[in-house]
Amino acid sequence: MPSPRKSPPPDPQIPVARRAIVRAGAAVAASTLLGAWLRPLVAQTERVPLPDAVDLRRLVAANRILAHENVVDAFGHVSIRDPRNAQRYVLARSRSPELIELDDLMEFELDGTPLDARGRTPYGERMIHGAVYEARPDVHAVVHNHSYAVLPFTIGEQALQPMIHMAAVIGAQVPVWDIRDDFGNTDMLVRRMDQGRSLAAALGTNTCVLMRGHGAVVAARNVKEAVMIAFYLQVNAQVQLQALGLGTAKPLSAAEVELSSATQFSPLALDRAWEYFCVRAGVEPV
Amino acid sequence: MPSPRKSPPPDPQIPVARRAIVRAGAAVAASTLLGAWLRPLVAQTERVPLPDAVDLRRLVAANRILAHENVVDAFGHVSIRDPRNAQRYVLARSRSPELIELDDLMEFELDGTPLDARGRTPYGERMIHGAVYEARPDVHAVVHNHSYAVLPFTIGEQALQPMIHMAAVIGAQVPVWDIRDDFGNTDMLVRRMDQGRSLAAALGTNTCVLMRGHGAVVAARNVKEAVMIAFYLQVNAQVQLQALGLGTAKPLSAAEVELSSATQFSPLALDRAWEYFCVRAGVEPV
Amino acid sequence: MPSPRKSPPPDPQIPVARRAIVRAGAAVAASTLLGAWLRPLVAQTERVPLPDAVDLRRLVAANRILAHENVVDAFGHVSIRDPRNAQRYVLARSRSPELIELDDLMEFELDGTPLDARGRTPYGERMIHGAVYEARPDVHAVVHNHSYAVLPFTIGEQALQPMIHMAAVIGAQVPVWDIRDDFGNTDMLVRRMDQGRSLAAALGTNTCVLMRGHGAVVAARNVKEAVMIAFYLQVNAQVQLQALGLGTAKPLSAAEVELSSATQFSPLALDRAWEYFCVRAGVEPV
Amino acid sequence: MPSPRKSPPPDPQIPVARRAIVRAGAAVAASTLLGAWLRPLVAQTERVPLPDAVDLRRLVAANRILAHENVVDAFGHVSIRDPRNAQRYVLARSRSPELIELDDLMEFELDGTPLDARGRTPYGERMIHGAVYEARPDVHAVVHNHSYAVLPFTIGEQALQPMIHMAAVIGAQVPVWDIRDDFGNTDMLVRRMDQGRSLAAALGTNTCVLMRGHGAVVAARNVKEAVMIAFYLQVNAQVQLQALGLGTAKPLSAAEVELSSATQFSPLALDRAWEYFCVRAGVEPV
Repeated sequence: MPSPRKSPPPDPQIPVARRAIVRAGAAVAASTLLGAWLRPLVAQTERVPLPDAVDLRRLVAANRILAHENVVDAFGHVSIRDPRNAQRYVLARSRSPELIELDDLMEFELDGTPLDARGRTPYGERMIHGAVYEARPDVHAVVHNHSYAVLPFTIGEQALQPMIHMAAVIGAQVPVWDIRDDFGNTDMLVRRMDQGRSLAAALGTNTCVLMRGHGAVVAARNVKEAVMIAFYLQVNAQVQLQALGLGTAKPLSAAEVELSSATQFSPLALDRAWEYFCVRAGVEPV
Repeated sequence: MPSPRKSPPPDPQIPVARRAIVRAGAAVAASTLLGAWLRPLVAQTERVPLPDAVDLRRLVAANRILAHENVVDAFGHVSIRDPRNAQRYVLARSRSPELIELDDLMEFELDGTPLDARGRTPYGERMIHGAVYEARPDVHAVVHNHSYAVLPFTIGEQALQPMIHMAAVIGAQVPVWDIRDDFGNTDMLVRRMDQGRSLAAALGTNTCVLMRGHGAVVAARNVKEAVMIAFYLQVNAQVQLQALGLGTAKPLSAAEVELSSATQFSPLALDRAWEYFCVRAGVEPV
Repeated sequence: MPSPRKSPPPDPQIPVARRAIVRAGAAVAASTLLGAWLRPLVAQTERVPLPDAVDLRRLVAANRILAHENVVDAFGHVSIRDPRNAQRYVLARSRSPELIELDDLMEFELDGTPLDARGRTPYGERMIHGAVYEARPDVHAVVHNHSYAVLPFTIGEQALQPMIHMAAVIGAQVPVWDIRDDFGNTDMLVRRMDQGRSLAAALGTNTCVLMRGHGAVVAARNVKEAVMIAFYLQVNAQVQLQALGLGTAKPLSAAEVELSSATQFSPLALDRAWEYFCVRAGVEPV
Repeated sequence: MPSPRKSPPPDPQIPVARRAIVRAGAAVAASTLLGAWLRPLVAQTERVPLPDAVDLRRLVAANRILAHENVVDAFGHVSIRDPRNAQRYVLARSRSPELIELDDLMEFELDGTPLDARGRTPYGERMIHGAVYEARPDVHAVVHNHSYAVLPFTIGEQALQPMIHMAAVIGAQVPVWDIRDDFGNTDMLVRRMDQGRSLAAALGTNTCVLMRGHGAVVAARNVKEAVMIAFYLQVNAQVQLQALGLGTAKPLSAAEVELSSATQFSPLALDRAWEYFCVRAGVEPV
């Protein structure tokens, strides 16, 4: 029989702060998240020239939600345009969305130059965000993800289409961009502004664009909508894939997409979803 | 190396009630749910003209169960007919089922008029419930959901059929209703009583009706049966989809549907399932 | 914004025992399970003429494991032959496997007659167990389940076959039994000994038999093996279904089934799996 | 109504150490894992001639991660080459990866001879590790797993290929090895060095090799990379299977595989993923 799993007293040689890294199990997670949210925001905003604290906390929440709903894994990111300066955006340092806290947020110029790095390393693909903000003044939040359910539509023969009313928010057309078309063989990442601009051109006036063998980009008016779109893009992909297994499948009409999308973005639906997503992810519905 | 995730002391400027919003992790969830159940029901029933407290607590449980089993996500709802007045029904305010508590329950006339709104916003699609109660005196509980496993059958070429004995409760026929047939392009939602009545007509004397690109409605004799039907509708959809991937699939016969359904609704089976669902969802098996 | 989720103080009018019903969240679950395991077994065995306490605790563990691994849901059951009397078997009262405790175990004659009901209601399908024990003296543990992954193979066109070495334990042949063949239209349940005997005849000398539109039966030499077989029957079904989606799939040879099966049932493999299953299900690896 | 689930006081006859076996629920898990990590490593390394403590803790973390991400179940294992002696490797005793602690680690000669068994039973398939280390001096970490998503590609008609940039790390070619080709009917396990060498020959200079009806082997430069490869091998299998359901699917080009792979193994990506995996699995990101 296996020996029992013992819990010896903590090693006094390991500092307390280091022990706190370990987030094993719900109880620890709860207190950690709670702690993160209760951390004074005043000091934070004094130190860094960042937008209003509510926007920042909402961006942190978006990171946690996308991770909790498996829209992102170790990779993927979400940003907001700085509401005080349209030529800047806020995005986390290079870290998995599930772990993002307020201190991880950085501000960037549209060309990707960090404004206050303080030793923090930015995401290599932040040009996606800058290029979309540059091309689309109407966009104030961007998600980039590698959702496993969406990926088959980036390499398969069938176009992803809105099939269910909740996913009308993805828009009537979802183009696929292939980095190889303009840039030949690469490491697949959008590392430069010219690559980001090519991607933004493929996005056009749509809400979502797929990236061949890579993932998706969502461009939205605000971060709540961005989360909802990214989530239902994933649900729609799963539903469409299964429906195609039954034969042909009937998509929403263009008019239904427009009308349903407006309804999904109404406060009645959007706030209901936001509260739900936040509570599930263990963050305050700010 | 990443900096540790710290848990600073709570910010005294943030009120205690606000901190309690955060439901992160099982420990917090447990105490929250426990608290909700232990809240005195007397005050509740004195304040609002609602049916017996057991029925209400069972309706709250149904909300939590359907969320826990992924039959509903941020959207979807479940109602009961008021046992004291067949011309009224009880349904939560506009909130995700996972978060519903006793205080969220509202009472409506069959035409959707709220009786005691107290500032609470009702679901936009409550007409589904009223129209079904109006058309079907035998129905005392209604579920509306967007189960991801069921959705392919609302847009695909294959009819959803009872394939397994546990799903005999869905009935021999599961019609599909398309709002576009009667109402042209809409936002897909059942917002008006004429739309609800069209849907109820498609339901007919059946137990379930699918809604193209939208979801499903379950009409049952009581809320326990409604939960069981909605749950096994989802299981049946998953099993049928996979079986069709192997070629043709053999459904239950009409007689098997009738006989199995009666067995599944016997106290022996129904109470066993109800206890199971409640414990999993963290609510008292009332 | 939604109102915060409050946790008021417990209502003193609700007894403590009743509060303890609610098993919401892991912390409560942990202490509850621990409590169940630590309950003195002496009193239990004095009161009921049941086999050795270790066998009983292992049977409770098997219930919990099968539920935790989604082999059973609200329905399904597992039994052992009484090691002191081969004409009897031990099976829980009618309750979901996830919730089974020592007090739920009952003893039966092979024809399904309970020996010490004490007001407890037995499972309606216990005849499955008695009929298999009657026909197969080599069998000392039986599982009946409705695993969702297995169900497509009970109604589809493809035979379930051992495809992976871990699933060699299911045996080279997995026949499908259809209750309609011998008994016409029924409620699909095995309620009588003649139905159980028909099922046992279809099982023959195999390890598993599928039931059309219903589920599966596993017949094993002991309860650890029964759990392993039921678990990998489910895994094999999922793998085979996906492999068939890629074209034809290469099964194990008959010799590989025999040789791999012996290896999987060796203490090295079986005890490793048992410890794993028990820890995941939160029960002591007895 | 079912009786409440009681939590009686602990039985004083059951020793405390035995009670601690039960790891039911997150709270217990958290303290257990924390305890394991804080256990003094000095005593451990004095007793056994093992490599540096950081390497050992990282190997324990790799076990937990692979289990948490469902890359391994009760079976499967991960090893490292001893950095102080290239003719030896470190691998756990025969136990499920989810349960591995520092005390479970053993050291072996390349031919599988244990150096300090201390009564511990080694894995029957450790020859996989020795044979790969023998054939590939560039390899310092090996994973063997039975990932359910990968298994269909070991028995189906389609070759597994890198389809998404995150999975470029699996390499351009993923050969399939069939033990029956060289050794006829066996129990499918790699028990002897000649079998291991046959497998290593099939692996060749690739990163991954599939084993018909059995699983996969991953050969990497270090344990972090091994975990990343094994994880994205699984993701790629799922994505490719679904994409093939939509028709043909476009894989990465050979140049994209090479370029993307280098990016994924950069500290920016690898450390981000490692922190994510560790936190999710409840272990310190060492």
